[in-house]
Amino acid sequence: MLHNLFEALEVKYAEMVEIRRYLHQHPEVSFKEYKTAEYIANFYKNLGIEVRTNVGGNGVVARIQGAKPGQTVALRADFDALPIQDEKDVPYKSTVPGVMHACGHDGHTATLLVLAKTLHEMRDELEGAVVLIHQHAEEYAPGGAIAMIEDGCLEGVDVIFGTHLWATEPVGAIQYRVGPIMAAADRFEVTIQGSGGHGAHPHTTKDAIVIGSQLVTNLQQIVSRRVDPIESAVVSVGSFVADNPFNVIADTAKLIGTARTFSEVVRDQIEAEIERVVKGTCIATDSSYSYTFHRGYPAVVNHKNETDFLVEVAKQVPGVTDVQESAPQMGGEDFAYYLQHVKGTFFFTGAMPSNAEAAYPHHHPKFDIDEKGMLVAAKTLGAATLQYLSAATKSEEAAV
Amino acid sequence: MLHNLFEALEVKYAEMVEIRRYLHQHPEVSFKEYKTAEYIANFYKNLGIEVRTNVGGNGVVARIQGAKPGQTVALRADFDALPIQDEKDVPYKSTVPGVMHACGHDGHTATLLVLAKTLHEMRDELEGAVVLIHQHAEEYAPGGAIAMIEDGCLEGVDVIFGTHLWATEPVGAIQYRVGPIMAAADRFEVTIQGSGGHGAHPHTTKDAIVIGSQLVTNLQQIVSRRVDPIESAVVSVGSFVADNPFNVIADTAKLIGTARTFSEVVRDQIEAEIERVVKGTCIATDSSYSYTFHRGYPAVVNHKNETDFLVEVAKQVPGVTDVQESAPQMGGEDFAYYLQHVKGTFFFTGAMPSNAEAAYPHHHPKFDIDEKGMLVAAKTLGAATLQYLSAATKSEEAAV
Amino acid sequence: MLHNLFEALEVKYAEMVEIRRYLHQHPEVSFKEYKTAEYIANFYKNLGIEVRTNVGGNGVVARIQGAKPGQTVALRADFDALPIQDEKDVPYKSTVPGVMHACGHDGHTATLLVLAKTLHEMRDELEGAVVLIHQHAEEYAPGGAIAMIEDGCLEGVDVIFGTHLWATEPVGAIQYRVGPIMAAADRFEVTIQGSGGHGAHPHTTKDAIVIGSQLVTNLQQIVSRRVDPIESAVVSVGSFVADNPFNVIADTAKLIGTARTFSEVVRDQIEAEIERVVKGTCIATDSSYSYTFHRGYPAVVNHKNETDFLVEVAKQVPGVTDVQESAPQMGGEDFAYYLQHVKGTFFFTGAMPSNAEAAYPHHHPKFDIDEKGMLVAAKTLGAATLQYLSAATKSEEAAV
Amino acid sequence: MLHNLFEALEVKYAEMVEIRRYLHQHPEVSFKEYKTAEYIANFYKNLGIEVRTNVGGNGVVARIQGAKPGQTVALRADFDALPIQDEKDVPYKSTVPGVMHACGHDGHTATLLVLAKTLHEMRDELEGAVVLIHQHAEEYAPGGAIAMIEDGCLEGVDVIFGTHLWATEPVGAIQYRVGPIMAAADRFEVTIQGSGGHGAHPHTTKDAIVIGSQLVTNLQQIVSRRVDPIESAVVSVGSFVADNPFNVIADTAKLIGTARTFSEVVRDQIEAEIERVVKGTCIATDSSYSYTFHRGYPAVVNHKNETDFLVEVAKQVPGVTDVQESAPQMGGEDFAYYLQHVKGTFFFTGAMPSNAEAAYPHHHPKFDIDEKGMLVAAKTLGAATLQYLSAATKSEEAAV
Repeated sequence: MLHNLFEALEVKYAEMVEIRRYLHQHPEVSFKEYKTAEYIANFYKNLGIEVRTNVGGNGVVARIQGAKPGQTVALRADFDALPIQDEKDVPYKSTVPGVMHACGHDGHTATLLVLAKTLHEMRDELEGAVVLIHQHAEEYAPGGAIAMIEDGCLEGVDVIFGTHLWATEPVGAIQYRVGPIMAAADRFEVTIQGSGGHGAHPHTTKDAIVIGSQLVTNLQQIVSRRVDPIESAVVSVGSFVADNPFNVIADTAKLIGTARTFSEVVRDQIEAEIERVVKGTCIATDSSYSYTFHRGYPAVVNHKNETDFLVEVAKQVPGVTDVQESAPQMGGEDFAYYLQHVKGTFFFTGAMPSNAEAAYPHHHPKFDIDEKGMLVAAKTLGAATLQYLSAATKSEEAAV
Repeated sequence: MLHNLFEALEVKYAEMVEIRRYLHQHPEVSFKEYKTAEYIANFYKNLGIEVRTNVGGNGVVARIQGAKPGQTVALRADFDALPIQDEKDVPYKSTVPGVMHACGHDGHTATLLVLAKTLHEMRDELEGAVVLIHQHAEEYAPGGAIAMIEDGCLEGVDVIFGTHLWATEPVGAIQYRVGPIMAAADRFEVTIQGSGGHGAHPHTTKDAIVIGSQLVTNLQQIVSRRVDPIESAVVSVGSFVADNPFNVIADTAKLIGTARTFSEVVRDQIEAEIERVVKGTCIATDSSYSYTFHRGYPAVVNHKNETDFLVEVAKQVPGVTDVQESAPQMGGEDFAYYLQHVKGTFFFTGAMPSNAEAAYPHHHPKFDIDEKGMLVAAKTLGAATLQYLSAATKSEEAAV
Repeated sequence: MLHNLFEALEVKYAEMVEIRRYLHQHPEVSFKEYKTAEYIANFYKNLGIEVRTNVGGNGVVARIQGAKPGQTVALRADFDALPIQDEKDVPYKSTVPGVMHACGHDGHTATLLVLAKTLHEMRDELEGAVVLIHQHAEEYAPGGAIAMIEDGCLEGVDVIFGTHLWATEPVGAIQYRVGPIMAAADRFEVTIQGSGGHGAHPHTTKDAIVIGSQLVTNLQQIVSRRVDPIESAVVSVGSFVADNPFNVIADTAKLIGTARTFSEVVRDQIEAEIERVVKGTCIATDSSYSYTFHRGYPAVVNHKNETDFLVEVAKQVPGVTDVQESAPQMGGEDFAYYLQHVKGTFFFTGAMPSNAEAAYPHHHPKFDIDEKGMLVAAKTLGAATLQYLSAATKSEEAAV
Repeated sequence: MLHNLFEALEVKYAEMVEIRRYLHQHPEVSFKEYKTAEYIANFYKNLGIEVRTNVGGNGVVARIQGAKPGQTVALRADFDALPIQDEKDVPYKSTVPGVMHACGHDGHTATLLVLAKTLHEMRDELEGAVVLIHQHAEEYAPGGAIAMIEDGCLEGVDVIFGTHLWATEPVGAIQYRVGPIMAAADRFEVTIQGSGGHGAHPHTTKDAIVIGSQLVTNLQQIVSRRVDPIESAVVSVGSFVADNPFNVIADTAKLIGTARTFSEVVRDQIEAEIERVVKGTCIATDSSYSYTFHRGYPAVVNHKNETDFLVEVAKQVPGVTDVQESAPQMGGEDFAYYLQHVKGTFFFTGAMPSNAEAAYPHHHPKFDIDEKGMLVAAKTLGAATLQYLSAATKSEEAAV
C-alpha cells in the first residue's frame, strides 16, 4: 500500500508543482487569504471530498473517510503569505505587489492538496479517516490555529502531523526533535516614567535615559544568572526610544522587546524576572513604570512516541536520504496549539534550492524552494498517515 | 555727578517702560531682528548720537564721546526674542504669534537706550567715551557676539559691563561673581554602529541597544570619578533612539547630549573622556561608533578687579538693597566672548514680579519682569560707567 | 553468558560491599592515594591477574585476556577521595580526619574490582580482552587521566565505558546522553590595575572597584548576547577582592571565576570574549589588566553509536528499571580525555539512599550511596563488555 | 602693640623651633597623647599661666587674662601624631617606631605655646582674655574637639581662630575661605546578602558579586545625576570584598566607602540616596542588605565676618606675601565643631619646604615643614587676637 502511495505521488508531482506555482503567483497576507481559501475548497469540491470552509476565519477543513474503520489522522498545512515584495526573477513570481509566499506555505498547501487527492483515491483501503487542516494566518499572532481549534477542526482527531519545508536543508533531509522544536515567542513593553527637565540641571530630574539604560544592562542578568544554563532563553530589547532635544533630560523612555523560551516554567520565570528588574531599577532611581508581557505562540513541543514513530517512517521513505535530530529553533509556530490538544509531531523537510545562488533564508525577498522537497514531504506525511492508521488497527485487534 | 545720573534716570523711567513694552509687543527671533535693530538705530539717530548698523549681522553699535579725554567703557544689551507663544494676559502682550520676549532682552534694550540718552545729555562732563553694544541673537548658537566682535565692536574699548534682568531675584538685588558665573554649554553626538538581526538570535548580532545602554551607564563615571569634585560639570544624554520592531535587534543607536562646565580644562577633559568611554565600550562589544563634540558658548568668566569694582559701585546705588555673590549658573551666555577680549564683568539684576503669582522662570510662556528692575540696572550700569571713567582719569593723573 | 555474569555478580555483592566499606574507612586525597593503589594492585595480584602500577602517577591498570581472539574493552573507575570531614554516623565512616569518600569513588572501585574478578573467572569464553583502568586524582585538576593516557593505559583499547554512581537518582536508573554529558570547567583570573588614592580625590585616581564592577556587569552580556542561546554556557565570577580602608580608592581589584561549556567552539569563544570585555572596559577607564584563562577538564562528549549500544544493553540488565536521557551536567570529569582518544560512553547509575533522610548531594559531609547501585553498575558495565566483544567478533566474521 | 608682638615672636623663633623638634621626636598617636599633654601643661605651669588638664580627655586649656576688660578670643592647636613610620633623615626625626608627626601638629603646638608666652608677657595691655585650646585626637574620629567642647573649653569664648600649617603652599601664603573650607567626611558600609552556590549553577543562587557590582555602578549616579552640579560631593567605595574559591558563587559581598560633602543638605541627601540605590538594587535581584552610614566630622564652615577680618589682618602681617582664597578641601577637620558653637575662621598657613625635594604631602612618611611657616602662623594668629580684642573694645565704647 505504501508502494502504491509513493508511486501515485510521483505521478502527480507535476500537478503539485503547478498548484504551488499558481499559489505563488497569487499570494494573500494573513487574515486576508479569501481567494486562496476558495481555491482550496474548490479543489476538494471538484473531487467530491467533504469540505468545510470559514473554519475559525479563512480556514478550510476537508475529510476523507476510509472504507475501513479506524482512527483519525490530521495533517496541517498553512496557506498565508507575507507583506514582502517578490524580487525573484522566475516565471511564477508573485503577481501581487508587496505580497509574497516567502516562507513556503504555497508549497505546504500544494503538498497537502495532492496528498489528499491521492489518499482519496486510496480510500477503499484506508483504515480510518484523514482530516486535512488548511490553516490561515500562521504568520501573524494570534494566528489561525487557535480559532480553527475552537471551531472544531480537531474533533475526533487522534494524532496530527505537520511539516515545514526548510530552505536551509537539502532535499532528502528530514529533521525531527522530541520535545521543544520551536520556541515560545513573547513580546514585552516597559515605559519608564522619570521626570524631565533641563540638561544642565540633572538633580531636578529623574533621567529616564539613565534609568532605561540601567534597566537594559540589568536585564542581561536574567539569562546570565537566573535561567538554568541547560535551558535556552533569550531576552532582547529591540526598541529604546527617548527622543528629545540635546539639552533636555528625558521624561520617559519606552522599551519594547521579545522573550524566547522552550519551557513554560522558564517562560513564566522570565515574565516575572523582567518585572522584578524593572521594579527594583525604578525603586533605585525613584521613578515609576508600566510593564506588559504579551504572550505569543507557545513552544512547539513534539510528543515522544509520535516523533519516534515519524523517524522510523521517514527512514523508509524513498527520497529521504538523511533523518537527523534538529537543534531547537528560536522561531515561533502556531502548530504549537494543535500539540496542546492532540498527540503528534512537527518536522522539517529539506527544500534548499540545489543551485546555491538561489538559496535565501525564509522571509527573504528572493526566497524560493526546491519543489522536489514537496514530493518528499507528501510521501513522508502520506506514509505516516497510512502506517499510523494501520498500526492503530492492528493494535486494537491485538487488544481484542 | 552720580546724583545727577540717578535723578535723570528716575525722571526717564516712564520712557524706559514705554520702550520696553513697545519691544515686548513686537518681538523678533534670533538672527531675524530686522525691525528691532532699525528701532534701536533710529532712537540714536533721533538724538544725534553716532551709530553703526549691521554690525556682524543685525547688531547696532552707538558711541558717546565725552568732552573730556579718558578711557572707553562698553555696555552691552541683547535684543532677540524666543520662538515661544506669549500666554500672559497683559496689555503689552506680544502681537506676533509664536514669538515672545520670554527672557527679558526687551528690558535690557530699554534700559540701555534710556541710559545712553542720559549719558549723552551728560557728555560735557564725561571723561572718555561710552560704547553701546546692542547685540542680536544671544539665544541661538553661534550667537551674535562673535560676529560683532569680529566686526570691530570692541575696538578701543577698555572695559565692558553687562547685566541680565533676573526674574527669580527680587528688585533691589544685584548678584555678582568673580570668575565663572555662567557655564560653557556644549553638545555631543554618539552613534553606535552594532550589527542588527532577529531578536531570537542575539549571538549573530552586536546589540546596539545593549551597547548604548552600557555607554550611558559608563558615562556617569565622568562626573562621579574623573572630574575634580570641586569643579562643576554635567554630562547629560538627552536623546537615545533605536527604534525597531519588538523582535529585531538594533543595528544602531543614536545618542545626543549636552556637557556643561565652567573651566576650559574640565571642558577639554570631558570632550576627551566621553570619547574614551565610547571607544572602550565599543571595543568591549566589538562595535564601532562615530562621535562629535560641538562647542557652544564658553563659560562667562568675570574678571576679579572689575567685579570687585562693580560690587563697590552697586552698594552705593539707590534702590540696590542687596549685593550678593551668585552661585555659578549652569546656563550659557555669549557675553562670554566679550570677556575673552576685554576686562569686565557680567551680573544679575533682580526683576522678580512682586506679585508672586506672576513670577515664572525664564523661557516660560507667562514670563514677565518687574520693570523697576530696569531702573536699578540702568543706575548700576550708569554709575559703573561714570565711576570707572573717573577713576581711570585719576589713576592716570597720579601716574604722571 | 550474560545470565552467568549477572548471577556471578549477585553472588559477589557482599564482597563488593565489603571492599567499598574498607575503602570508605581509608580514604586518601587526590595525588596521595598510595595505599589505595596498593590495595587495588594486591587485589589483582592475589587473583593472578596481570597488573601495572604507577601508571601516570598512582594509577593502576589490570588486563584480562580472554581465551578467544577479539577486540579490547576498557572500563574505568576513579579512586581518590576529598578533603572533607565525614559527618555520617555509620560503622564504615572514614577513619581519616578531614578526608572522605564524598563522591562515591570507593563504590566505583569496588564495582570494578569485583566485576574484574568475575570476568577473569569467565576468561575462557571471553572474545578479546578487558582493560581495567583504576584512575587516581579525578577530583583535582589536571587530574590523573591525562597522565595515565600518556603512560599508555589506552594502548590497544577499542572502546571505553565508565559510569558514575549518582546519589540523586534512585537505584535502577541508568542515565545516558549522546554528545556532551558533563561540562568543560575552566578558571579565569583578571587583575584590574587602576591607580589608588584618597577617597576624597577620585579624579586623581583610576578607581579599580568601579572598573571591576563595570567589568562584572559587562561580563553578563557574554552569556546573554554572545553565546548561541541553544548552547549552554556559564561565566561566574566567584571572587572579587579589593580590600582597603574606607577612605582609600582601590589601586587594584582581583577577580577570579569559572566558565562552563559543552562545546569547544563556545569554550574558545568565551575565553576570547572575556578578554575582549576586560580590554574594552580598561580602555574605557584608562586602566590596565592581567588576564589568564586556565583550561580545566574538557566536556565529556559521548560517542553516539557506543551510547546507543549502551542504552540497548542497559534495557536488558536485571535491576535496571529506567533508562533515560540525562540533561547535560555543568560539573566536570576527566573521563573526557579518554573519549578524545577512543570511542565510548560515560553514564550515570542511580545510587540514591532509599531512606530520603540519608540522601545528600555529592561532596556533602553526610554524603552516602545505596550500595545496591554498585551491583547495577557492575552488571551494566559487565553486560556492555561482553556484548560489545561478542558483537565485534560477529561483525568481523560477517565481514570475512 | 602689633609691632611689639611681631618683634617678640621673632626673638622667640628659636624656641619655637626647639619645641617643635622636641615634639617631633616624641610623637604620640591619637587618644594616647599623655606625655605631650603633660609637656604642654608644664610649659604653662612654668610660666604661671592658668591651665586646665584632662579637658575632654587629654585636652589642655590655658587662659591668659588681660589687665583690661574685653572679649575672649580662643586659639586652637591640635597635638596628636599618626601611626606612620618616620622615613626622614634629619636630626629631629621621630624616636618612636611607627609613630610620626606627619601632619604638622607638632608645629601647631609650638606655634601656640610660644604665641601664648608672648601674649602672657603683653597681658598688661591686653583688652580681654585669650583661651589656648590644645586639642588631642584630631586625626581619629570622633576626635577630641567634641569632648573638649562638652567639657567647657569654649565657655565665655567670643570668637575662635585656628590654622593648619600647609606643606603644599610656600611660606608667606595665607589661604582663607568664607563658608565651607573642609568637607564633611562620612563612612558607609553595605553588606549584600545574596545566596551562594556552585559556580556552575547560577540559577540556584543570588550572586552577591554581580549584585554588588551593579550597586557600585549605580552609585555613580548619585554624584552624576542626583546632586546639584554646583555642589561638591564624593561617594567612593574603598573596599569590595567577596572572597571565595573560583568555582563558588558569592553568598555575600561587603562594601565600605566614604562620602564627602560641604553642605548638610547634600550630606543628608547622600545618606538617603545610597540607601535608595542599595534597596532598589536588592529588590531587582531578590536579595537583601544591611546598610549603615556613620557620620564623621562635619564640614568646616567659616563665618563671613571673621574670615573677612582675618584677611584684612593677614595682609598687614610682616612675612605674609600672599593672601588668597582657598579652594574647598575634600579632607576633614574637627575644628568644624568649634565653628558650630562660636564665630570664627580656620585658615591655611604656607609651610612648604623651600627645598622642593623635601616637599611631601601630608601623611607621607617623609613629610616635613618649613619651620618659618610657624612664625607666620604665630604672627597672624597673634595679630588677629590683638586686633579683634581691640576692635571689640572700641566697638563697645562706640555703642555706649
